[in-house]
Amino acid sequence: MQGAIGVGMLGLGIVGSGVAQALLTKADSIARRVGRPVVLQRALVRTPDKPRALAPALLTTNPAAVLDDPAIEVVVEVLGGEQPAHQYILAAIERGKHVVTANKEVMAKYGPEILESAAARGVDVAFEASVGGGIPVIGAFRLDLLANDLQEVTAIINGTTNYILTKMAREGVDYETALAEAQALGYAEADPRNDVDGIDAAYKLTILATLAFHARMRPADVYAEGIARLAAADFRYARELGYAIKLLAIGRATERGLELRVHPAFLPADALLANVDGVYNAVSVEGDLVGRVLFYGRGAGAGPTSSAVVADVIDIAQRLHAGRLGGEARAASPLTRLLPPLDEARRVLPMQDVWTRYYLRLIAADRPGVIAQITHVLGEHEISLASVIQKEDVVVDAASDLRHAEIVLMTHRAHEAAMQRAVALIAELPTVARIGSLIRVEG
Amino acid sequence: MQGAIGVGMLGLGIVGSGVAQALLTKADSIARRVGRPVVLQRALVRTPDKPRALAPALLTTNPAAVLDDPAIEVVVEVLGGEQPAHQYILAAIERGKHVVTANKEVMAKYGPEILESAAARGVDVAFEASVGGGIPVIGAFRLDLLANDLQEVTAIINGTTNYILTKMAREGVDYETALAEAQALGYAEADPRNDVDGIDAAYKLTILATLAFHARMRPADVYAEGIARLAAADFRYARELGYAIKLLAIGRATERGLELRVHPAFLPADALLANVDGVYNAVSVEGDLVGRVLFYGRGAGAGPTSSAVVADVIDIAQRLHAGRLGGEARAASPLTRLLPPLDEARRVLPMQDVWTRYYLRLIAADRPGVIAQITHVLGEHEISLASVIQKEDVVVDAASDLRHAEIVLMTHRAHEAAMQRAVALIAELPTVARIGSLIRVEG
Repeated sequence: MQGAIGVGMLGLGIVGSGVAQALLTKADSIARRVGRPVVLQRALVRTPDKPRALAPALLTTNPAAVLDDPAIEVVVEVLGGEQPAHQYILAAIERGKHVVTANKEVMAKYGPEILESAAARGVDVAFEASVGGGIPVIGAFRLDLLANDLQEVTAIINGTTNYILTKMAREGVDYETALAEAQALGYAEADPRNDVDGIDAAYKLTILATLAFHARMRPADVYAEGIARLAAADFRYARELGYAIKLLAIGRATERGLELRVHPAFLPADALLANVDGVYNAVSVEGDLVGRVLFYGRGAGAGPTSSAVVADVIDIAQRLHAGRLGGEARAASPLTRLLPPLDEARRVLPMQDVWTRYYLRLIAADRPGVIAQITHVLGEHEISLASVIQKEDVVVDAASDLRHAEIVLMTHRAHEAAMQRAVALIAELPTVARIGSLIRVEG
Repeated sequence: MQGAIGVGMLGLGIVGSGVAQALLTKADSIARRVGRPVVLQRALVRTPDKPRALAPALLTTNPAAVLDDPAIEVVVEVLGGEQPAHQYILAAIERGKHVVTANKEVMAKYGPEILESAAARGVDVAFEASVGGGIPVIGAFRLDLLANDLQEVTAIINGTTNYILTKMAREGVDYETALAEAQALGYAEADPRNDVDGIDAAYKLTILATLAFHARMRPADVYAEGIARLAAADFRYARELGYAIKLLAIGRATERGLELRVHPAFLPADALLANVDGVYNAVSVEGDLVGRVLFYGRGAGAGPTSSAVVADVIDIAQRLHAGRLGGEARAASPLTRLLPPLDEARRVLPMQDVWTRYYLRLIAADRPGVIAQITHVLGEHEISLASVIQKEDVVVDAASDLRHAEIVLMTHRAHEAAMQRAVALIAELPTVARIGSLIRVEG
């Protein structure tokens, strides 16, 4: 076998340790698949004294020891977070190194520019692990679905929130209880906002939408609404009505523009996505030729993420081995395939202009005519009802001991701005105590 | 843009017409993705006089007009069937042309040798469309899952049988009725044996298992049992017991060898595969790093198959454009990535040595002690029961008007050979009128 291909790592946390372990324990089979050995040369860490499986000689706290080492041809970035990861990725590209990253934040914020720099420098940037862990969804967009005009991507791409929602649905517990258990099990962080507010899912949707719609998308283009306001009651009604509640990431090409949104949604209980539970992720795609395809698997964790990172390393190493990267091939680098020309004219539809259906739960006086008042307001905004459920005897104000009813409305398709205006007016009706939830209905 | 990449087609049936239409109508976007135009030069047809969307000048009945044309760099084989497709593919490779094929029969029977010839000649053979239509499952094995040791592939990969089974499950109709409707709708052929006997699924499993287990598999290595003996009663009991019935293709690496089998199976009703209905396909894969991933979509039809064929054409064209195929790169062709070294030592476990659970339905005299006799035979073969259902008043013999009971047994894990012997003995018990069904239970 020929000389080894050197790999340097930036970061050796949970994912990084998984990648390092896979590179070491699977060295023989990786070498067979590549045609020559792939050798972990050095890993950047913050605390070199922590006990690790890796030989201390391989550890460094100096980024230059990875970025400037000519024996390192492939840099694996698994630091996470925006900085210094972004800066290191650019430095690696500048030095002519290929990059494999699991960094959704950096790829969401700077992906197109990073890929353009890499193409100009004749190196590859692979990022399969940035969305959906080991589910090969980036590869599908990069290549397998290229013949299609894609109309829609609908995904469950945040394992933390899906774990919490699954627990709320199955056990009837409230949000705080489910979150606390997710934290105890390590599925949610001590500060869970990045996950529960939909920010993580918005990063991933930005990456998917950029690839799916060949458009230069930014995280700020994504409307993001989290799960913290969902109540146990919503899950009871969802089940009663034949739905599941999921945090969906939706990218949709409509005639009026691209819809890009992350929010909790009702999904028919028999929909495949409705049955993606726990920490699993799934990405459903609609194309003009292929129809609907769906990818499912674990979206996070050391194993699945390592699966994607090491596959990207193998892919680059195979092409390095075959002499198909770098050198004189620079002008026509493999990067052209990562990012076909972007359609700069594609615009994102403001959330206010989205049309969808709604579930509205509110607490109102248990008195005749209340529903008529509410439907009157909806009607004035051209929103028609699909169904109404009224439950009596919900005590809202323990002090006054007033009897209130919980009213659940399902609408037909309506304009988001009109729905928001109608709900604001409904909240002000004297007979309405408060709005419980407003949840969009998809599928 | 540089000079065009010429494509020649072998076959212009339903799939071929879909591919030709996609190449023509999407010429602009394909050219943008590739970097230069991809042009359909010529198509081999049997009957040139049939009305078609393609200009008559593009049609030929002479295979050499495709295979020997130096302007054609990529040959798309969509003839189907073993010959002359196999011979044409080899001829194209020999002439230094890249090949894209949707041919599961040829790839199942001759895949490894075709890929080896292609590697030796420095050309690529792509076959994403051979399994699962537009679902990018071949690509997943070729690249995305390469870092994994794969333990299992379980798939629903024949749309015809899945349509029939879904109909039987939903409508309670018998096999013949469901088959007739599938034929009327064009989902089953006039001679349906290739599908309903599990032959088509066995071809596809051969291809998947070769890639998943890096082993040189043949269709003859696959145990194949079709769906024609399933009865409406089996679907009733399956539902009652909490199962669905699917034609599964299973490849499993066990310590004793590889299991390769296609047969109807009970699957727990809440399993994802149990909810893959109609003409949809799904492939579920277990790997040591990635855990479980599942791919879902339409497994057949002009659109989905064209999606995969055209993606393969784009991939080859991109690499041709980038100068990464052919010429001096021959010694290190991209084919090395299609087929990592095969482990010639891997052996297939005979079906007789498989262990699984079983559902057994039989018709017996409605008399005390019958179940005791049956369980005695099972016990002698070290097969233990998980549950028993007995229904009375099934009239088997209308002439004698004897009262019989239908008995349904679910076993724990048992050895296939022992189960077969036990069932043969049970069939001979004087109190047993006949064996209704023996169906394996998975998941």
